[in-house]
Amino acid sequence: MIPNPPGRGFAQNGAAWSFAAGPSRLPDAVLARAGETLFRRDAHGAAAIERPFTGDDFRAALADARTRLVRLLQVPEHYRVLFLAGGAMHQFAAVPMNLLDPAAGLGNAAYADSGYWSRRAMQEAHRYANVTVAAKHAGSTPLAAPSLSGWKLPQGSAYCHITANETVDGIAYPVLPDTGEVPLVADATSCILSAPLDIAKFGLVYASAQKNIGPAGLTIVIVREDLLRRPATAAPSPLHYGVQAAQGSCVNTPPTLAILVAGLVFEWIEQCGGLTAMAEVNRRKAASLYRTIDESDGFYIAPVAPAHRSITNARFHLANDTLTDHFLDEAERQGLAHLRGHPHVGGLRASLYNAMPEAGVDALIRFMTQFARRYG
Amino acid sequence: MIPNPPGRGFAQNGAAWSFAAGPSRLPDAVLARAGETLFRRDAHGAAAIERPFTGDDFRAALADARTRLVRLLQVPEHYRVLFLAGGAMHQFAAVPMNLLDPAAGLGNAAYADSGYWSRRAMQEAHRYANVTVAAKHAGSTPLAAPSLSGWKLPQGSAYCHITANETVDGIAYPVLPDTGEVPLVADATSCILSAPLDIAKFGLVYASAQKNIGPAGLTIVIVREDLLRRPATAAPSPLHYGVQAAQGSCVNTPPTLAILVAGLVFEWIEQCGGLTAMAEVNRRKAASLYRTIDESDGFYIAPVAPAHRSITNARFHLANDTLTDHFLDEAERQGLAHLRGHPHVGGLRASLYNAMPEAGVDALIRFMTQFARRYG
Repeated sequence: MIPNPPGRGFAQNGAAWSFAAGPSRLPDAVLARAGETLFRRDAHGAAAIERPFTGDDFRAALADARTRLVRLLQVPEHYRVLFLAGGAMHQFAAVPMNLLDPAAGLGNAAYADSGYWSRRAMQEAHRYANVTVAAKHAGSTPLAAPSLSGWKLPQGSAYCHITANETVDGIAYPVLPDTGEVPLVADATSCILSAPLDIAKFGLVYASAQKNIGPAGLTIVIVREDLLRRPATAAPSPLHYGVQAAQGSCVNTPPTLAILVAGLVFEWIEQCGGLTAMAEVNRRKAASLYRTIDESDGFYIAPVAPAHRSITNARFHLANDTLTDHFLDEAERQGLAHLRGHPHVGGLRASLYNAMPEAGVDALIRFMTQFARRYG
Repeated sequence: MIPNPPGRGFAQNGAAWSFAAGPSRLPDAVLARAGETLFRRDAHGAAAIERPFTGDDFRAALADARTRLVRLLQVPEHYRVLFLAGGAMHQFAAVPMNLLDPAAGLGNAAYADSGYWSRRAMQEAHRYANVTVAAKHAGSTPLAAPSLSGWKLPQGSAYCHITANETVDGIAYPVLPDTGEVPLVADATSCILSAPLDIAKFGLVYASAQKNIGPAGLTIVIVREDLLRRPATAAPSPLHYGVQAAQGSCVNTPPTLAILVAGLVFEWIEQCGGLTAMAEVNRRKAASLYRTIDESDGFYIAPVAPAHRSITNARFHLANDTLTDHFLDEAERQGLAHLRGHPHVGGLRASLYNAMPEAGVDALIRFMTQFARRYG
């Protein structure tokens, strides 16, 4: 691809890239297929988006999506996969509502604080549980996930919650903590399907769809069967894991369109070679971008320690923060959109989910190199 | 349109009609526009389905959808309109979680039992509230909504819940009950936007999208502002009306795609002349169908009293029930799909939401008339 001179955007040429943290880019092939297939009426007078969720067509599509996801993640047999309405924040409440069991001596909840989203999860849990901060990131740069030693898991911990990848902070656990008998619960929203994940290490994994799975409004929950036996008396039925597992995620009308698109995404990942192939490309994309930052002679700064850097949410900033708005304006004119960091931490962020091709990252790197040359 | 001989289906001719209760038919124009516009990337490299919910594009679309809905329903100024993830069943829990206020003497909840869905709402409420059955349908045919006299509203009722239109039973309130000072809360899922609705009579109205609003996975809540001051300590943040109202329905990532389609539906209704025009067509469609049933010399039976018949969910059955499967098979071969009644009540049901044109109802009526002639 020919690098564009500043001012003559990729946008005009039709090659523009959104680095949004979510809802994020869908794979080109999925976008095309969704547009072509989901809104076309069949012989029964209904397009996929219009089909009853109790009908054979939708049930087959849901079963197919579930099978593909189980195959991609190699979900062990004693886990159930739920397709639930809403976002990860619904699970911030659903996790304590479902897993606490004070009558069985499981009235406490342990949370590791690795950044913005783990704190949001904790805030919500505070309304339902006695929350203990099991571990906390150091807070000083280079930033990192909490150290794996010295975790406090109080007696009677119903679970220990981590945020596997911090979308805002750009921090990921390089190695998972070992919480022993206490079920490890992970918010994997922004890293699921970016690489293989050993589900057997978790009691429960949840992920909202709008990063690597599909459209917003859907959340996947993968839960170990023994945890479904906890009473969950206060969980609303659509957020009650046991009830949803017993009814195949169809306690009420599920977000059918989002599930259909998710199925197309799972199929696309399989066609790309599965999660090992995904991880290889994702690591290469992230490595190129972080290398550009690290080799910029301090013009760009990545505040996270190399081993803890997220491969899906690359966070960085300009040493000279007064150039940030200018960087964003020029980037946007060149068709590189949604690079502003989350308001909570400022700076810049490039989200490199599965659907972002290497060409998009290459375009970003070319722009960053040119920008650094002109303003460095 | 030329009536098709039995066995040569509308399906083959491309004119097939789905009478599904939900997810239901979208207006043709909306289906076409959604397919064309939501999956096409813009100059920033993002299709509508891929846009960040914090960005100007989505916020403008959400504000536009809200404005159109407020205009259609003439929502008074002291009400807030929320666009929430999930279905009506999420609201079955959210209503008691948000509106009960035992500390202020509002620890009871009154429910009118008009059929299947009001009982489901009640079952869920039982987990959070002291539930009183304020009124109950008689149960004998002709079926009807509860009589408007003699409602029991116990002292300290936080609200009184009705199901304005029973999707399964085909029963609608011809006149709304007067609950005095106790806020009237209505599940209007299957009747909202089918006719004008006097919002000022309600404390709260909720409706999941997959009937007259758009794709499944979205629920609209219209709530009187004073009710937002109740503490709602146990409501998960995404289901907390006060929190969602304060944050413009964007406490977390909302179901963006469903909201975009809903906006197109609202625009379509406006172009059709608004709710008065909708109601006129809907009443005409329902009247034709019920007339066909009533004038069939008892071949078809509508079990609901005429004044209480739903205009959106026409429930009926064959006097000779052994013909039901045959009726359904033949109908489907003629391109008339999803006419089976809900398993809970059996028989037949034709859902005639806004997007079902009169031509679809005419086709159904022609088939029913022919079928009665052959088997009557």
